[in-house]
Amino acid sequence: MNAWQLDDDRCFNPDPTRRSIARELYKHVRALPLICPHGHVDPALLADADARFGSPAELLITPDHYVTRMLHSQGVGLADLGVPTRDGSPYERDPRAIWQRFAERFDLFRGTPTGLWLAHELIDLFGVEERLGAANAQQVYDQIAGRLAAPDYTPRALWQRFGIATLCTTDAATDDLLHHRALTTEGWGNMVRPTFRPDALCAIDDPLWKTNLELLEARIGSHITTFAGFIEALARRRALFRQRGAVATDHGVATPYTTRLTAGAAEAIFTRALRGGSSAADAGTFGGHMLIEMAAMSAEDGLVMQIHAGSLRNHHPGTFQRFGTNVGADIPLATEWTRNLAPLLQEYGTHPNLRLILFTLDESSYSRELAPLAGFYPAVLLGPPWWFFDSVNGMRRYFTRVVETAGLANTAGFNDDTRAFAAIPARHDLWRRVACDWLAELCAEHLLELDDAHLLAYDCAIGLAVRAYRLEDSLSGSAAGSAGAGRLNG
Amino acid sequence: MNAWQLDDDRCFNPDPTRRSIARELYKHVRALPLICPHGHVDPALLADADARFGSPAELLITPDHYVTRMLHSQGVGLADLGVPTRDGSPYERDPRAIWQRFAERFDLFRGTPTGLWLAHELIDLFGVEERLGAANAQQVYDQIAGRLAAPDYTPRALWQRFGIATLCTTDAATDDLLHHRALTTEGWGNMVRPTFRPDALCAIDDPLWKTNLELLEARIGSHITTFAGFIEALARRRALFRQRGAVATDHGVATPYTTRLTAGAAEAIFTRALRGGSSAADAGTFGGHMLIEMAAMSAEDGLVMQIHAGSLRNHHPGTFQRFGTNVGADIPLATEWTRNLAPLLQEYGTHPNLRLILFTLDESSYSRELAPLAGFYPAVLLGPPWWFFDSVNGMRRYFTRVVETAGLANTAGFNDDTRAFAAIPARHDLWRRVACDWLAELCAEHLLELDDAHLLAYDCAIGLAVRAYRLEDSLSGSAAGSAGAGRLNG
Amino acid sequence: MNAWQLDDDRCFNPDPTRRSIARELYKHVRALPLICPHGHVDPALLADADARFGSPAELLITPDHYVTRMLHSQGVGLADLGVPTRDGSPYERDPRAIWQRFAERFDLFRGTPTGLWLAHELIDLFGVEERLGAANAQQVYDQIAGRLAAPDYTPRALWQRFGIATLCTTDAATDDLLHHRALTTEGWGNMVRPTFRPDALCAIDDPLWKTNLELLEARIGSHITTFAGFIEALARRRALFRQRGAVATDHGVATPYTTRLTAGAAEAIFTRALRGGSSAADAGTFGGHMLIEMAAMSAEDGLVMQIHAGSLRNHHPGTFQRFGTNVGADIPLATEWTRNLAPLLQEYGTHPNLRLILFTLDESSYSRELAPLAGFYPAVLLGPPWWFFDSVNGMRRYFTRVVETAGLANTAGFNDDTRAFAAIPARHDLWRRVACDWLAELCAEHLLELDDAHLLAYDCAIGLAVRAYRLEDSLSGSAAGSAGAGRLNG
Repeated sequence: MNAWQLDDDRCFNPDPTRRSIARELYKHVRALPLICPHGHVDPALLADADARFGSPAELLITPDHYVTRMLHSQGVGLADLGVPTRDGSPYERDPRAIWQRFAERFDLFRGTPTGLWLAHELIDLFGVEERLGAANAQQVYDQIAGRLAAPDYTPRALWQRFGIATLCTTDAATDDLLHHRALTTEGWGNMVRPTFRPDALCAIDDPLWKTNLELLEARIGSHITTFAGFIEALARRRALFRQRGAVATDHGVATPYTTRLTAGAAEAIFTRALRGGSSAADAGTFGGHMLIEMAAMSAEDGLVMQIHAGSLRNHHPGTFQRFGTNVGADIPLATEWTRNLAPLLQEYGTHPNLRLILFTLDESSYSRELAPLAGFYPAVLLGPPWWFFDSVNGMRRYFTRVVETAGLANTAGFNDDTRAFAAIPARHDLWRRVACDWLAELCAEHLLELDDAHLLAYDCAIGLAVRAYRLEDSLSGSAAGSAGAGRLNG
Repeated sequence: MNAWQLDDDRCFNPDPTRRSIARELYKHVRALPLICPHGHVDPALLADADARFGSPAELLITPDHYVTRMLHSQGVGLADLGVPTRDGSPYERDPRAIWQRFAERFDLFRGTPTGLWLAHELIDLFGVEERLGAANAQQVYDQIAGRLAAPDYTPRALWQRFGIATLCTTDAATDDLLHHRALTTEGWGNMVRPTFRPDALCAIDDPLWKTNLELLEARIGSHITTFAGFIEALARRRALFRQRGAVATDHGVATPYTTRLTAGAAEAIFTRALRGGSSAADAGTFGGHMLIEMAAMSAEDGLVMQIHAGSLRNHHPGTFQRFGTNVGADIPLATEWTRNLAPLLQEYGTHPNLRLILFTLDESSYSRELAPLAGFYPAVLLGPPWWFFDSVNGMRRYFTRVVETAGLANTAGFNDDTRAFAAIPARHDLWRRVACDWLAELCAEHLLELDDAHLLAYDCAIGLAVRAYRLEDSLSGSAAGSAGAGRLNG
Repeated sequence: MNAWQLDDDRCFNPDPTRRSIARELYKHVRALPLICPHGHVDPALLADADARFGSPAELLITPDHYVTRMLHSQGVGLADLGVPTRDGSPYERDPRAIWQRFAERFDLFRGTPTGLWLAHELIDLFGVEERLGAANAQQVYDQIAGRLAAPDYTPRALWQRFGIATLCTTDAATDDLLHHRALTTEGWGNMVRPTFRPDALCAIDDPLWKTNLELLEARIGSHITTFAGFIEALARRRALFRQRGAVATDHGVATPYTTRLTAGAAEAIFTRALRGGSSAADAGTFGGHMLIEMAAMSAEDGLVMQIHAGSLRNHHPGTFQRFGTNVGADIPLATEWTRNLAPLLQEYGTHPNLRLILFTLDESSYSRELAPLAGFYPAVLLGPPWWFFDSVNGMRRYFTRVVETAGLANTAGFNDDTRAFAAIPARHDLWRRVACDWLAELCAEHLLELDDAHLLAYDCAIGLAVRAYRLEDSLSGSAAGSAGAGRLNG
């Protein structure tokens, strides 16, 4: 077996004309700082200067639903991968056994983005020199574990090594934000920011809704007895999130339905919900109304509003009952945006202070609905290819379906959306490479001039994300930031 | 900054094998006359030999919703672009100020078809030699204005320069067709043709329906009191359109729903509509029935029937109230064709005299529904990529998703669908280039032979459009026409 | 006209880097045996050692709905192509006249997979050396007819020549399987296998349902008076199919709706159906329940379950009344999988013995629903591009939309799905070429290593199909089989 390595030209079309342009573009953006405006990294990792990653299995396998779902699809049980059970049934606790199972099936990831990210991490971060497999599994385990024990592999050390400029976590609206407070105290507040996610409070059909509402009451220190009081409580939480550095909210919904209720109707549904007597129809209507309320608040307080729509969570009830959420059993739905968002956009689509970033799992809506919406409404930007589409081909489809109609300026750049901290550089690198390859194609076909391509490559790498999330301050400390500021489009 | 110019190889894949074939194919079709069977050019421009284009802003910005929507999406108000208001609120009247705003944001159009068309026009038609930007905006304005004042830049002069063989306008069924009568008188009747568009008369839920019906009554000089009388009136208008040179009808609908009503049911709905008492359900049913009535008439009188489906017009009420229609606020909808068209096709899909051309804004239906329909029904052809998809990637998706199932012969060639007269050559040129590039790919992969590719390149350029719209007469005067006739497929 | 021939590099991207890799990969898989786990070949052709193909028109035109629909779309009547009528109206009986009509319009198939398959057959199998057209039609007819009369052109001789290892036919659940019994007797049972297709028995709204139920009763020799008895009868038929070599079932549905009925509800609907009193809603519910019953039986008896969903059969009633089914008038529908399959997958999606292969005509569901489902559920595999998408571009879209999310291991390889026996090698060859070209792209972009690409090329060619349909035994006799077995992933 040859040495395992990352080719410098990966992702670049082999045509010599295209490849040389892609290389030239990439050369100027590869080392730019990383802007991470949306993701699921645990802030505890960074809040505590002494925090450590766990074992190689805890770092790379068990919590990563991209990894667990693929192994599961080929018959490896989630419990055998160490996913903790909720029902008391046993699950693997030996990280070496988990690692061995993974290594034996590493071939499954050929041709997948997960495979590319893992290779990037193993080779580049952990210095693995031989392709992972059954035979060398334990040796590779040792090597990773050794590195993780070293002082230059703490989360904060990797933050520096990765060149992360800023990273937004995703946090329940009722979160205590203690980690973010600690980070602020230590001067990391400009770097690690919370994101306000009120989903659990907006879904009145969630069995835990009352529990979450009580938590909200506890956070604000007063009872919530009316819809107006509920909105007021959310506003107070948003204010605290902003104080802790938040620049955005996030809303995960199965469908991006929006509707405007009268104050009376909203109050009536909320009252029914408080009494435990709301219907399924109530829940849909209430959720649709809450998205408009959130847009109203964003137009007011300037938090960028993100909508992630179209995932049917926990598709397999048996898996959910045993293992809970986020283990790989979420399946996308066809998603309608044009009619669903109309009520929200009628009110706030042209508001000068609203910024609404849309994420889809239905690629057929890129060219049909999302690019046209982003290409008309000043408030709307289109988020980067999400989840399954954070991949070489997913990005290519995104660029070729979105930009002609929306213009690149109406997109929101990249975010890694990951809970896998160690995968962050690999994900950004893939995006930068595919973006440069796409721009190189435009140049090679004489549809874009090279100097423009350089500007757009910078925008793809960091400019668009900085602008979309109003993160100009986060770049101010770095050389790239100052150089970049003058090159941004807006 | 280097000289601004159009590369001769633009749109062509850089692979040397493919590019040399593309060049060879394109060489033979680039100068063919332009067939424009569907579009929105104002016939007044051509009816009056002394007509002149307005200012550069009136020519290139204000009336072009591709341009205004993109600027709007980035915060430039429509009023600031000179779009006239309907509510008496002020709007920019200074074309130089409009032009300046546009020039300052010209970068927004990088990577978009609008950007390519504008560059083509500015460089090729107006001789601009430096990329447009804030600094040279007024100088470029002067240059364009100077050209527009010259005698060889009248609409008719450009018609000759562009090599347009025939152009169909789109006209309300109640239009007086005075411009087309004047054109016929002057011998342009074979060249500039009206298209019969009865949408406003078929939408009984349109607030202006009664007004339009009264206009129809005025045109035919008699009262319409029954559905049968309504149909008779439409037949008379169709006859007049044919006399003025029309070869086609056009039907714009949000959804291509069709249904066959009994005579009694149609009469009942029509009566309710006359009395102002029709319901929303009535409107849907009536519209679905009218499409079948129109197919019946087309099978009778030979007017080619076009259906443009899937645009939700005036998505933003505030914009509609202030600026009216066609300013860039129309957003596509997912579109179902298989079940919706079944009633119409059951009756007329195999009629030897019906030709039905379908246009979609839902690209997912290309391979799923439209190509299979066109590949079975003799009456059905698939129109070219429409609106947002009249773009390099839109065309590529069209060719690769449609032709394998439908065959190229079941497509309708190209139309520019533009109200921007000066953009016509740029649009046709882009289509011809992308078609040749696609055919070159087939040749380079040995899936098509070169002599066949030459024939198909001709068909894409003009042959398919001529055949689809029965425009053989329009080509008879030109050398290309006679040369081409023998090469057509059907 | 130059000699008509098949280029050795067809389907391969012309970029020298990619092409040389594609050639290298293809070289090792081109001659592998053909695994045909799903198709519609008539078993009578192979059961009788003396069977002969009919005329060139009967072999290549009349029964092939890919061919007849395209000619029909351009105005050639199905009767003129020899399609037998059901209403007693005349149809062409002269195979030479049919052939002439076809040859005159052979150009229609340029750029289509049908055109590629036909060229492959004419050149490679029948030695035609000049492109087919009106002028040489009868001469080519003579040449084909001559070959078909030769002893080495019997179906069994071609089976050997083609290198078919195993072929599954598709057979009604009530079929007598006499041909398969004869094949088993002659030692072909391991090679030609039936597939259990119970659609006609599950569709209680089919006018022929009672007739088919009576046929089922006759087959099992007892009356069916209860739902439980119906299920028992199906189980007995499945057992017989397995005895005759079946490895799979097949279920064709307009929509993949599944739902679990209580035993009482199922019994009630079945009773209503027996009495002729079931409703349209009953039919939908019953069909949805039957898919779960079938999954339950497959989990029990190990027959691989195939679902082909999304075709609206017999779209044009007039054509159906005159010519019946399978003449090219089936049109796809948008297809929802995520919610529809949830009830079935809730019960059997993680069952270790169920294998469920899904086929779609809605490509937008590849990346949105099917790849995520296959990438989580152990039971689910995604079938190859089906019907209209069994094409160069259809395959390319499939690979680039499916594999990144599902992984190649969760796909089911290729099947030719054809009733055109002579087209089988052409179809497999196209798949192998496109697969190698896709893998070559991954290698050239350094996203896959060459040794892995060789393994995946083998998997695409036969490994995945063998594994998906549990056909390991069928390969055991051949050298490729033994070599391959060790290279399979699972």
